[in-house]
Amino acid sequence: MVKAFSFALLSLATAVSVVAAIDPIGQFKRLGACPDLGCVFPPDNAEFLAGSRFDVRVEVHAENDAKPNTNYKLTIEKLRGSHKDNTHGSKPKAIDFSKWSKVKPNAQEAWDFEYAKDATAYWKFKDGDKKAKTPVHVASTAWRQVQINEPGTYKVVLSYNNGKKTEAVWTVNASKRKAKNVILFIGDGMTTAMITAARLISKPHTSGKYTKHMHMDQFPVLGHVMTQSLDSLITDSANSASAYNTGHKSSAGALGVYPDSSASPYDDPKQELIAELLRRRNKKNGGKGGVGIVSTAEVQDATPAAVYAHTRNRDEKATIVDQMIHGAKPVVADVILGGGGKYFHSKTGGKSLNGTDYYAAYSKEHGYKIVHDRDALLKYKGKDPLLGIFHAGNMDVWMDRNVYKDNLKKSASDPTGTGLPALNQPNLDEMVVKGLEVLDKRYRKEGWFMMAEAASVDKMMHPLDYDRALADVLELDNTIGKTKAWLKRNKLDKDTLIIVTADHAHSFDVYGSVDTQYFNSFSDSEELEKKNSIGTYENSGWPSYVDANGDGFPDNWDGRYTLAAGTAVFPTHREDFQININGTRIPAVASTNSHHHYDANPADAPHGINKLATLSTNDNVGVHSLQDVPVFASGPGANLFAGIQDNTEIFHKIAEVLGLGN
Amino acid sequence: MVKAFSFALLSLATAVSVVAAIDPIGQFKRLGACPDLGCVFPPDNAEFLAGSRFDVRVEVHAENDAKPNTNYKLTIEKLRGSHKDNTHGSKPKAIDFSKWSKVKPNAQEAWDFEYAKDATAYWKFKDGDKKAKTPVHVASTAWRQVQINEPGTYKVVLSYNNGKKTEAVWTVNASKRKAKNVILFIGDGMTTAMITAARLISKPHTSGKYTKHMHMDQFPVLGHVMTQSLDSLITDSANSASAYNTGHKSSAGALGVYPDSSASPYDDPKQELIAELLRRRNKKNGGKGGVGIVSTAEVQDATPAAVYAHTRNRDEKATIVDQMIHGAKPVVADVILGGGGKYFHSKTGGKSLNGTDYYAAYSKEHGYKIVHDRDALLKYKGKDPLLGIFHAGNMDVWMDRNVYKDNLKKSASDPTGTGLPALNQPNLDEMVVKGLEVLDKRYRKEGWFMMAEAASVDKMMHPLDYDRALADVLELDNTIGKTKAWLKRNKLDKDTLIIVTADHAHSFDVYGSVDTQYFNSFSDSEELEKKNSIGTYENSGWPSYVDANGDGFPDNWDGRYTLAAGTAVFPTHREDFQININGTRIPAVASTNSHHHYDANPADAPHGINKLATLSTNDNVGVHSLQDVPVFASGPGANLFAGIQDNTEIFHKIAEVLGLGN
Repeated sequence: MVKAFSFALLSLATAVSVVAAIDPIGQFKRLGACPDLGCVFPPDNAEFLAGSRFDVRVEVHAENDAKPNTNYKLTIEKLRGSHKDNTHGSKPKAIDFSKWSKVKPNAQEAWDFEYAKDATAYWKFKDGDKKAKTPVHVASTAWRQVQINEPGTYKVVLSYNNGKKTEAVWTVNASKRKAKNVILFIGDGMTTAMITAARLISKPHTSGKYTKHMHMDQFPVLGHVMTQSLDSLITDSANSASAYNTGHKSSAGALGVYPDSSASPYDDPKQELIAELLRRRNKKNGGKGGVGIVSTAEVQDATPAAVYAHTRNRDEKATIVDQMIHGAKPVVADVILGGGGKYFHSKTGGKSLNGTDYYAAYSKEHGYKIVHDRDALLKYKGKDPLLGIFHAGNMDVWMDRNVYKDNLKKSASDPTGTGLPALNQPNLDEMVVKGLEVLDKRYRKEGWFMMAEAASVDKMMHPLDYDRALADVLELDNTIGKTKAWLKRNKLDKDTLIIVTADHAHSFDVYGSVDTQYFNSFSDSEELEKKNSIGTYENSGWPSYVDANGDGFPDNWDGRYTLAAGTAVFPTHREDFQININGTRIPAVASTNSHHHYDANPADAPHGINKLATLSTNDNVGVHSLQDVPVFASGPGANLFAGIQDNTEIFHKIAEVLGLGN
Repeated sequence: MVKAFSFALLSLATAVSVVAAIDPIGQFKRLGACPDLGCVFPPDNAEFLAGSRFDVRVEVHAENDAKPNTNYKLTIEKLRGSHKDNTHGSKPKAIDFSKWSKVKPNAQEAWDFEYAKDATAYWKFKDGDKKAKTPVHVASTAWRQVQINEPGTYKVVLSYNNGKKTEAVWTVNASKRKAKNVILFIGDGMTTAMITAARLISKPHTSGKYTKHMHMDQFPVLGHVMTQSLDSLITDSANSASAYNTGHKSSAGALGVYPDSSASPYDDPKQELIAELLRRRNKKNGGKGGVGIVSTAEVQDATPAAVYAHTRNRDEKATIVDQMIHGAKPVVADVILGGGGKYFHSKTGGKSLNGTDYYAAYSKEHGYKIVHDRDALLKYKGKDPLLGIFHAGNMDVWMDRNVYKDNLKKSASDPTGTGLPALNQPNLDEMVVKGLEVLDKRYRKEGWFMMAEAASVDKMMHPLDYDRALADVLELDNTIGKTKAWLKRNKLDKDTLIIVTADHAHSFDVYGSVDTQYFNSFSDSEELEKKNSIGTYENSGWPSYVDANGDGFPDNWDGRYTLAAGTAVFPTHREDFQININGTRIPAVASTNSHHHYDANPADAPHGINKLATLSTNDNVGVHSLQDVPVFASGPGANLFAGIQDNTEIFHKIAEVLGLGN
């Protein structure tokens, strides 16, 4: 089927004279970006920044009893296109890749792996049939730290199996500096619908028109970002954050690499990161710049890790801590603020790499000032790089940090392994503003890049805890307001591009209001009557949330009229449309009558209405969704972000604004 | 509660020196935009175009046994603000409204109505308790056809009940012409998620990056539109289309009026429409311009009717047909194309006003050329105004018009009342291009305004028929492409602003793919196994849809891998993630064991998984949702639409672009 269609597509491929590979249809694949038995990474349609460093890997596969033919070669030629032709002749010529790149490949490697061909094979394997998967044997060669300095379009061809070819067309882009500083705010999993709902619960309106607006609402430029993966329509946070930091799509779980089929999570072909490019930026474009990373998640979590780490597997968190200071060309960020303490030490709950004390290592080897609570953070006025780790794992969410504070006492969350709870965590705005102060002190002249993440929009949407997710959207928005004020006060507003976006979506929307008093007046069995508490259209009226103290958050989360909100994708659970004051919702728990599925959590919304899973019952929380996410931009270069764009373009635009190309 | 908060809000109201009314919290209201027992329409926070015509109504209410005090008065004063002060003195002075406006009010009126205070009262009344509602007695005065020519900010005060006051601050805006022509495309109920999904099923990609894009994707300017109503968070299509055509929010069901409490659907205070303003535009701004209306719905349906009609009740369709040619200052559009034939005649299935033959009336009184099928439409090359009515009701959707054509044979849909099916309906692109030809012939010099609606995005989302809805998103997108080509061919592209937006949202998103072969391999009782066919993240892979013939639509709608798509808001139904080839889905039907609720339709997706209603079971289809909708703009004035805006601002921006103010 795919073959037949590729002929029709031929006539559409006008930009370059090469048949574009079309992504194969279906759910399961031998290897993400590999269209056939021969694989080239980076794959067809990849884009680079001129002068950025990247790894190249080719693989030749053979299934079942066949053996891979180890006699293959890789060539490259520059195509004539819109860019200046540098091929020195009338016809472009394919040249041996090693010769052309002046990079000697590693020795040829061999390994085996296996994969499920489709859902039947996948679930058979899950049910214990070890033969349900197909074995694959691989021969592979890698070229490390390749650079292409000349902008233009290149065709790379892997010739294998006596005449078979896998082609990849690569585009190399130039850039020119437009701003000194860039702040990239990421609301993890944040959609337009969540912003709309957050606005509704926090801003006043008269005759249906808002009389105050979100800070995001006031950005002059709006765009949408397409988030699909290299090899599937739904991305995860690693894959999508990698796109922002490298300009390359990848597969779920991958950080700064294209995923090959080998077992090691560290040998996959790497792509250079914004932070790495900024650290080695040439004098002409401003020289080495500062790097700041702020997140309410673990600082090793996908989105922050994508700023400084390379691995096929985002779960290698202990190694990710090590990569920050001991990687090949380590980023050693000037500001690292967030959670994830347990990967820094080996005390109570500690999981650090080889039991190393990384707090000591960061301090000793790179002079980091280290803080572990809000007071110490706010007190710091120094110029040394700052490592602030405030929680053993992900930081608690705004709602529990600020409203239901007793929930903080329930876990041994101290970031240093005392076994005590972390009761004095800073808010996102405090971390961001402190981070800006440090970056400004260290790199005012050269400029800097900060990634700041409201991580728990996603972490609260997964368990359907909409109140907590929307509060974290508001925390992000209020942080943006405080950031703009700080920039203005410090006369940096005209030099600084602010981008606000998300990495992927979660299905979510509001479809009315709920009269919780009416809802609660019926017994659990009167489910139909409970549902009559949902007001739609003219009967949706206005909910009870009001921000009277003007802090940008509603003052009341448990009023009579709440949001009738929901998602298209959920495990079996109950819903009562009321805030869970005891901490994050846990919608589903392991079933007692089956070995691989989840049931509604009897302790969650016990008097709620029943909702049957719209997912495999192997899932206990909601999953990411497809819709484009918004991107807001303000400051020099903001206009680049208008309209629709691929997530990889965000990298190229930031790189252009910061002058990261040659 | 509302009272307490309004004090805090006082300090925030910096723009004008008047306490902004805050919209009352809760689901049910006595009367939408009326904050207290005294009502002013247009209400607080309304905006006008300088020189536009509008009605003013005040009401004084008394509940239960009380009587309304008929001794009230209305005053107006111009406030000093950012605009020039024209009050001729040091202090602005409140002037009697009749004296100031030089409009004599109608005689004082009186009527009664009743309303439900909350969900308890509402459902008691529904269950037969006639006393559950609260009676209200009303005294009212109306001023018709008021005009404010001077831009600025005005305070209007209703003084009633011996000292009580209801205040409204109105803003009056100027405008300056920027483009000759404006096309407003509306995808009814279309969200960003639907555009993302439509792109996925119709555009090819390589290594996860699209190699072709939607036409919308290529617009240079993107914005978001906030759609909430005058009096509730969820809008309907009448209310929202009115915002686009008048610059005023209203209540569900209202077209071109603020809803008062009187029983008549025709005496509510009117707001002037874009089409009306364009018909009486002054010479300086280009003089009288052309008006075109195209919809795949009935031409009396909310969105098209909002272009030319005024009524509290969108269901008054027969009268709406009459208003087009017999209204107070009738719009008599140059182009009217769509469905809704049954309101034009009194033959089989006909419901025209007083049995009138409106086809004859339109033709005789205004010289309309009348066509009833695709061939006659395409053949028309004349300059006379064109009325094309192709269906008795809403036109069939793209999927049935073009793929499952046999479904057209099932209804007596002929627009002239023959009782036969309408088998030769045009597509949206054909209607739009023909409409453009006629407008160009009639108003090339003066310019024109066209509203073209893909109405059935909404009409298919309501019954959860995602395939049909997405096909209609694609029909809209392909129509935009053909429109751009036509404009370019006719050298009108530089004179024409194109806006593409929606009027409200429906919750919808894609969260993976479905292996339908695997899904269908299990029996109905094996629901857990069926759900395992849903692939998420890396296992979402790519679905089977391919557009090999390059017409902008997938060639196959029934491939093995479909979208795992859904909504947060639905009646109880079944889902099999597969196209319904027999026509529009009917997800729920009246229950056999209760008098007021719906069950899953046993004939819809009979082998699908079960989904329990997330709505009142009095609803048999999904409802509108809250999220901001996208607006794309291209052409002169496009930059006005960047960023976040209220739906009423769309009117003011179009008015500015067309120079409709004084």
